[in-house]
Amino acid sequence: MHLTFRKHLEKFITVNDEEFLAIVAFFKTKKVIKKENLLLEGTICRQHFFVIEGCLRKFFINDKGIEQTTEFAIENWWITDNIAFEHRLKTSFYIQAVENSEILILDRDAQEKLLEQFPKMERYFRFVYQRAYAASQMRIKYLYDFTKEEFYEHLCKNHPEFVQRIPQYLIASFLGFSPEYLSEIRKKKRS
Amino acid sequence: MHLTFRKHLEKFITVNDEEFLAIVAFFKTKKVIKKENLLLEGTICRQHFFVIEGCLRKFFINDKGIEQTTEFAIENWWITDNIAFEHRLKTSFYIQAVENSEILILDRDAQEKLLEQFPKMERYFRFVYQRAYAASQMRIKYLYDFTKEEFYEHLCKNHPEFVQRIPQYLIASFLGFSPEYLSEIRKKKRS
Repeated sequence: MHLTFRKHLEKFITVNDEEFLAIVAFFKTKKVIKKENLLLEGTICRQHFFVIEGCLRKFFINDKGIEQTTEFAIENWWITDNIAFEHRLKTSFYIQAVENSEILILDRDAQEKLLEQFPKMERYFRFVYQRAYAASQMRIKYLYDFTKEEFYEHLCKNHPEFVQRIPQYLIASFLGFSPEYLSEIRKKKRS
Repeated sequence: MHLTFRKHLEKFITVNDEEFLAIVAFFKTKKVIKKENLLLEGTICRQHFFVIEGCLRKFFINDKGIEQTTEFAIENWWITDNIAFEHRLKTSFYIQAVENSEILILDRDAQEKLLEQFPKMERYFRFVYQRAYAASQMRIKYLYDFTKEEFYEHLCKNHPEFVQRIPQYLIASFLGFSPEYLSEIRKKKRS
């Protein structure tokens, strides 16, 4: 199970067996089942999640009581509410399993100790955050630039692995429209 | 001029005088005047900008030929097109000075060498990217959650330093509506 994480680490830094064992000792592993919650709105966000296998999503509940998905994390992605995590604040998000998943959990304090003891992990997390930030900058561009239909087209073309794997009502929630409307667009696309 | 940058560095890491001098040797300093371009759409993005004094903005030109601002950077902020910068790609953005500004420029290759020679800079950039990512995650939430009017209210309340300093037509461009519409909202707010 830790092999997935080791491979991800070694994309960015080199670790020997001994170091790797000492590094993973900072993590907890957990199996979660579909729909299980890992973070609840209004609670202090103390955990950072790495997906070994499966899929998680982050969402908030809007004024109309509708779940608005803002992020998915599949294998090799980290997910948390980063502001709340860094500053030990109450979160306005939920994080929930989309599929039965296997995850690594890094507590806030453990992450700090890990970075102190293994400064090379600074480089690893620098890359993790740098790439996540770059992706979210493009996401912001798309939110300005694309109509919802265009954003769906873009997803289908550039991230078919997401569109095929994630239930349609969650894709709709991510795109910010109703499942009915998504189903109309899909019909139009097929015809 | 470098004092601003040193203060920012020392929020995250400790450097002595000798180290600091060696670190800033990787940077170029530049004074830019209002409206001067630092990055042009279609060119390879090779530079990372740190604002010592002044204000930069990032924008793209949409299908209708309108400049859509996606980001501002004031003192102590880094700005670039991060995907294009990391992978040496052509950018779809412009970066332009909003005010006469004094900036530090870190070239792509210089950034890599700097990180090799001063691994403690990994920690600095880890924090820079971590916080930028956290901010952009909240930004994405607002783009889903707020109407344009609510987003403007939020800006006025939480970032008055931006709203007071940045020309209204650019605030409008950032919010995604016309300058005329922003001026209507402001009138309504005052009355």
